[in-house]
Amino acid sequence: MTAATARAFPNIALVKYWGKRDEELILPVAGSLSLTLDILPTTTTVSLAPEAEADRFELNGREATGESLRRVAAFLDLVRSLAGSQTPAFVRSRNEAPTGAGLASSASGFAALATAAAAAYGLDLDARGLSRLARRGSGSASRSIVPGVAVWHAGDGDETSFAEAVAAPEMHMVIVTVDAGEKPVSSRVAMRRTALTSPFAEAWPRTTEESLAEMISACEAGDFTRIGRITETHALRMHALIQSADPPIRYLTPRSVAVFDAVAELRERGVEAYATADAGPNVVVLVQSADAEAVAARMEEFGRVQIAKPGPGVELLEGDASPEGDPS
Amino acid sequence: MTAATARAFPNIALVKYWGKRDEELILPVAGSLSLTLDILPTTTTVSLAPEAEADRFELNGREATGESLRRVAAFLDLVRSLAGSQTPAFVRSRNEAPTGAGLASSASGFAALATAAAAAYGLDLDARGLSRLARRGSGSASRSIVPGVAVWHAGDGDETSFAEAVAAPEMHMVIVTVDAGEKPVSSRVAMRRTALTSPFAEAWPRTTEESLAEMISACEAGDFTRIGRITETHALRMHALIQSADPPIRYLTPRSVAVFDAVAELRERGVEAYATADAGPNVVVLVQSADAEAVAARMEEFGRVQIAKPGPGVELLEGDASPEGDPS
Repeated sequence: MTAATARAFPNIALVKYWGKRDEELILPVAGSLSLTLDILPTTTTVSLAPEAEADRFELNGREATGESLRRVAAFLDLVRSLAGSQTPAFVRSRNEAPTGAGLASSASGFAALATAAAAAYGLDLDARGLSRLARRGSGSASRSIVPGVAVWHAGDGDETSFAEAVAAPEMHMVIVTVDAGEKPVSSRVAMRRTALTSPFAEAWPRTTEESLAEMISACEAGDFTRIGRITETHALRMHALIQSADPPIRYLTPRSVAVFDAVAELRERGVEAYATADAGPNVVVLVQSADAEAVAARMEEFGRVQIAKPGPGVELLEGDASPEGDPS
Repeated sequence: MTAATARAFPNIALVKYWGKRDEELILPVAGSLSLTLDILPTTTTVSLAPEAEADRFELNGREATGESLRRVAAFLDLVRSLAGSQTPAFVRSRNEAPTGAGLASSASGFAALATAAAAAYGLDLDARGLSRLARRGSGSASRSIVPGVAVWHAGDGDETSFAEAVAAPEMHMVIVTVDAGEKPVSSRVAMRRTALTSPFAEAWPRTTEESLAEMISACEAGDFTRIGRITETHALRMHALIQSADPPIRYLTPRSVAVFDAVAELRERGVEAYATADAGPNVVVLVQSADAEAVAARMEEFGRVQIAKPGPGVELLEGDASPEGDPS
């Protein structure tokens, strides 16, 4: 096989991934849990290019250079080392989510890249193997391999740090994009600064594992209210942790805070809605499907609003197809 | 002496008081440091009322009942136990700051009450003794006894937990009242919830003592920039701690966050301004006097703006005068 295409969706964590205990292997300081969505996918084709001198990466129709290309090429190096290959590749990716704005574009991106590259280079990986491989590109990508609700185990090492499905009750997400621009400090930089300077960093892994255990129990019990409460409390703790760095990092803007306030008001009126936010200004509201439309309508004043359902996890689309055109 | 009047000013902490290690004696989990202001004073007259059956408390011309009266009467009980008296008192207080909105009205209130009551009941207390006494009414009141910059030592116990002056460079404060209403959760309730439920509570005392040591060193060195950086980082850590409680408590509103953003923008333009906020939505901007007017003008879009200078600490105004009228 010389080309493969895969599609993966972003995921939004209910128990967050924040901090690595091993930067090379991307092993997290604690486990996490997320919902893989059914919108804003990344579709990526990896075509082996034996005649080329180096890897190339095209994102949304534009040739990438610099750090984006470097990360993709480093990931392809890992795949090649596993496959015993030295062949360069051409990677073409289309990402429907705004890049770098905290909407998990690196999760869908590396889940799709891992799956397409594994197929193109002939690696025979099961879902667990794909999750471990995607993790090496971007930690949260390990979860986008899995459909619906996924737990990413912190694990003892490379082999045991992967994501797998968890049974959970029906839920939807209302994504409120209050700001689609690039965030001021990348997650990678912010994770490092937090670990080095926050007085609260030491307590973070333990409290995250505790929230994760409670969350898995709430998911298995089908208890949406408990899931929601843990989600919002935990998200505010992650932002608290990040804010406690020196210099401080504040990802939540006035508009983000207004969304949290609006969600709290909805609860006071009896609507079961709970807010979370990744490392960026955008807010995701966790609801049951019956409330999704009404909550989405309430959120429209704050930005672009989209409703997402649990999605299918990564899919290999055309393992045998050649990519359009030939760049080499 | 049967009546005495004292005036005290609020203080704004640069290193915050958040959490008690002894609720009865009001001993804090860590030391703190503040600037006593020259605006928004509380003026309080304590008149012994031998014929009365119980204490009375009038705040801003209105007879107080319930929790406010109970706290004042409990404080008078403490003063009477020290003075060997059983005489009830009539307390009249005028407070120019909005009560309960995080502008330290309990600090000025109990500093004035302690000083007036000590004089009325004939206690002979020096500044340290007054600071210890005021502490028993409200922890931060210990600092409003002291003019200008005051450090409140955590101490080993009742006798060593008092505030005293610290040498510091010239600075002003721009107070931005974004919301003058009562805050949703009182400091006392929030302190307890934080201590009981936040995963970060354990780290708080140590990091506060570290910030305090750095702050005292920066004050003694006259280094306004270091003072400002420690102030803002520490304030955001306190709000992070509070936000990490379960259920979470968010005191900063969208407008508060907008003020923090505006202050950060001022710094990018070379203006030395640093934000802090007590347990409420209002924001205080620390500046040097030369920048006070310009920074105040920039803040006007966010709420009522006032400029404060270092104030005089508590003053006994009319130790011999009788109060107007006779309530007994």
